[in-house]
Amino acid sequence: MFDYVEKLKEFIRFPSVSTDSKFKEGMAGSQKFVSELLGSLGFKVEVVKTEIHPIVLASRGGDPSWPHVVIYGHYDVQPADPLALWRTPPFEPTIIGNRIYGRGAADNKGPLMTNIAAVAQLLEENPKLPLRITFLVEGEEEMGSPSFPVFLEKYADRLREADFVYLSDTALPNEQQVVITCGLRGLALLDLVVTGAKGDLHSGLHGGAFRNPIQALSEICASLHTPEGAVNVPGFYDGVLPVEAWEKAELAKLEGDGKAYMDFLGVDAFYTTPGFSPFESVRFQPTLEFNGIGGGYQGEGTKTVIPSKAFVKISCRLVPNQEPDRIKALVMETIRARAPRGVKIEFVDQHKGDPYVVVPPGRPNTPRDQSPILARAFRATDSAVAAVWGRPPLYLREGGSVPIIAQIKQSTGLDSVMLGLFLPEDNLHAPNESFNLDVMKKGVETAKRILSGITTS
Amino acid sequence: MFDYVEKLKEFIRFPSVSTDSKFKEGMAGSQKFVSELLGSLGFKVEVVKTEIHPIVLASRGGDPSWPHVVIYGHYDVQPADPLALWRTPPFEPTIIGNRIYGRGAADNKGPLMTNIAAVAQLLEENPKLPLRITFLVEGEEEMGSPSFPVFLEKYADRLREADFVYLSDTALPNEQQVVITCGLRGLALLDLVVTGAKGDLHSGLHGGAFRNPIQALSEICASLHTPEGAVNVPGFYDGVLPVEAWEKAELAKLEGDGKAYMDFLGVDAFYTTPGFSPFESVRFQPTLEFNGIGGGYQGEGTKTVIPSKAFVKISCRLVPNQEPDRIKALVMETIRARAPRGVKIEFVDQHKGDPYVVVPPGRPNTPRDQSPILARAFRATDSAVAAVWGRPPLYLREGGSVPIIAQIKQSTGLDSVMLGLFLPEDNLHAPNESFNLDVMKKGVETAKRILSGITTS
Repeated sequence: MFDYVEKLKEFIRFPSVSTDSKFKEGMAGSQKFVSELLGSLGFKVEVVKTEIHPIVLASRGGDPSWPHVVIYGHYDVQPADPLALWRTPPFEPTIIGNRIYGRGAADNKGPLMTNIAAVAQLLEENPKLPLRITFLVEGEEEMGSPSFPVFLEKYADRLREADFVYLSDTALPNEQQVVITCGLRGLALLDLVVTGAKGDLHSGLHGGAFRNPIQALSEICASLHTPEGAVNVPGFYDGVLPVEAWEKAELAKLEGDGKAYMDFLGVDAFYTTPGFSPFESVRFQPTLEFNGIGGGYQGEGTKTVIPSKAFVKISCRLVPNQEPDRIKALVMETIRARAPRGVKIEFVDQHKGDPYVVVPPGRPNTPRDQSPILARAFRATDSAVAAVWGRPPLYLREGGSVPIIAQIKQSTGLDSVMLGLFLPEDNLHAPNESFNLDVMKKGVETAKRILSGITTS
Repeated sequence: MFDYVEKLKEFIRFPSVSTDSKFKEGMAGSQKFVSELLGSLGFKVEVVKTEIHPIVLASRGGDPSWPHVVIYGHYDVQPADPLALWRTPPFEPTIIGNRIYGRGAADNKGPLMTNIAAVAQLLEENPKLPLRITFLVEGEEEMGSPSFPVFLEKYADRLREADFVYLSDTALPNEQQVVITCGLRGLALLDLVVTGAKGDLHSGLHGGAFRNPIQALSEICASLHTPEGAVNVPGFYDGVLPVEAWEKAELAKLEGDGKAYMDFLGVDAFYTTPGFSPFESVRFQPTLEFNGIGGGYQGEGTKTVIPSKAFVKISCRLVPNQEPDRIKALVMETIRARAPRGVKIEFVDQHKGDPYVVVPPGRPNTPRDQSPILARAFRATDSAVAAVWGRPPLYLREGGSVPIIAQIKQSTGLDSVMLGLFLPEDNLHAPNESFNLDVMKKGVETAKRILSGITTS
């Protein structure tokens, strides 16, 4: 068996930033690394070309009566900037204590390597393991998986032969408590560009005559929430389902400590959907956030200019029954209606993703027609976690988004078992991202038990 | 006599951006160029060291009974960014038609070269011209002249021997009509930084729990104006003087065409201090503008992050009786009071400048003790403009700021005669800055007549 920590280091060294075309080489290297690693384990590897970054499909066949799991992961990472805030180089993996630092260490290279290592060990221990396995590793997750729907059109039939999807691209609330993610928020992203005068202008010669686009943009942004914390877009909450009692009860077991969460964030007040705790708000409620804003002079010193343009990057996290295109339309309609006179409004459509929910077996709202192998996978997960971590997992929806999970469900009917492996302190999408190597070790053991558990009913 | 267009080209080639330390060399070259040029005209040149960029002081002495004019200018320029919007390289002067393009062409290298050329021609024609001249050319105008007060402390006594200051660093409304600027707006500049969580955070894992600093910043910025267009900072307008009737009448002669001004700006609505036309608002009313805003991810594609910080660069243009430090204090106090819970507020103090007013002879509010040589200078200007341009000048306050004019007045008692030479279409502080060479030619002739006119009472 390979040394999975060393392999993870190798994996992190590829600067595989999918959204930025400057990182083409890092993307290619990262893809090749995954393909060769899975090939070396005896998998039949296909590199499926897409419009942007290829998808790696690696399969281990077997008797058609064996259960068939699709293991999902992604080989791309978020941009590393702001670079100045990193304490170690983002693409030079550095182990400090029990953590490995680097962009993508936790999202998703570490967790994906955990599952690859589990499969490698299982197959080494039992080359005849009665389990069909298909690795599905994409390179566009951090850009919203734009090629995935096209891929699914062509490959849905093959995936439909499988029984369920297994992945680790979700969170662990702390080192003691595993969470099985039963829901993911959807996404609707767009940029708003506000234009005032047709060029940048001297603020002395023209200041006082017309509306500054930064002011107009601020007015629009400020209008999109109520003072209490709700998203102030008419129709935004239409159809949002109430939260199930068992879900609230499950979350209550996490015993979220508000003070500790505030300290972790470094804020002195919460600001949530009215009627929800910050923990509930993040998992069960939709949001409208500003991911970036820019316009005019941002350098050293001053420049007394009235900029021509200012922009903001908006992303909404969506919950079940919120359709991304409908939400985008509502947001654009609301902004157009609120835009003050004297400025022009334009939108740049970015990506989107549907929300997703799966209900574990034995709950009041478990679908009657749930697949027996999915139910078996949930039960195997329950006992594997209890054995390795000393505590059964919690079953919770989470605030993040893995839009392809909903797409897979829609086009193949497959549900997903999502075992979280990254911790809040792992700094996903932020400087100094890291992955906990103790968690990784337990993760490998857990995945081994789950995958072998499926094979025995 | 030198070819002043060629000399202007040489001058523009120095990338003399004073606010950005990357341009040290360009600043040094620009200063040396001015010093050597004035030296070659027979002036005694002193390069006065300051904390940042030296001041060039070049004098032509003479009989103490001769009038003594200080000619002001600056050898530094605004930053050239956004570079992508320039059609010609900003520091490679390019003549297209009757215009010379380049950063600083109009602000202030072209107008300064106009006055140097006038002096050179006058002295060539009459080496015994009974006029004492001191050129005062600074290198920190575009950063708010931070070293000027210290310079004045040391050199005020020498400047006090002069009779008035002459400069061309103001605007011409169109090619037909010269304006003598009788007032300049002051400046109060500061940056506001809003901090939310202590680091950038994943918008899925934490979105919905706390207030995004971009939202908080937007709320603050949106609150700083009324929907009607007034600055919404309590006390901001306290003490602002009513506009004199002759000033309004003088402005009315400009026959500002609102539609044409809207077309020039490229906007479909004005937004002014209530009760003032856009033309009046720019010249007679104070403003609060946003010169730049930034925070979070501004690159290609998307990054679903909640940024830790967001900032805005604020500048107020002030009118007589508005003291910059008082205005800064009011703005900061207002922002602190309006900052929502859950974010931290910090300010970065930038520069400032007092507003300035001079009243030409013969007006109802002309000071009784006005210096006879200043009055003579105004009359010489009046007839020089009438002769060269075919129309007498208008006497107007303008929206721009030259803070050192107020400082000179305060520490030496000297008033300034400001003859505008740049046109609205010259794109000051913006991409594709240019200077009209026909205006330059007339400007040289006008300055010659004014300077020789002072010598004959």
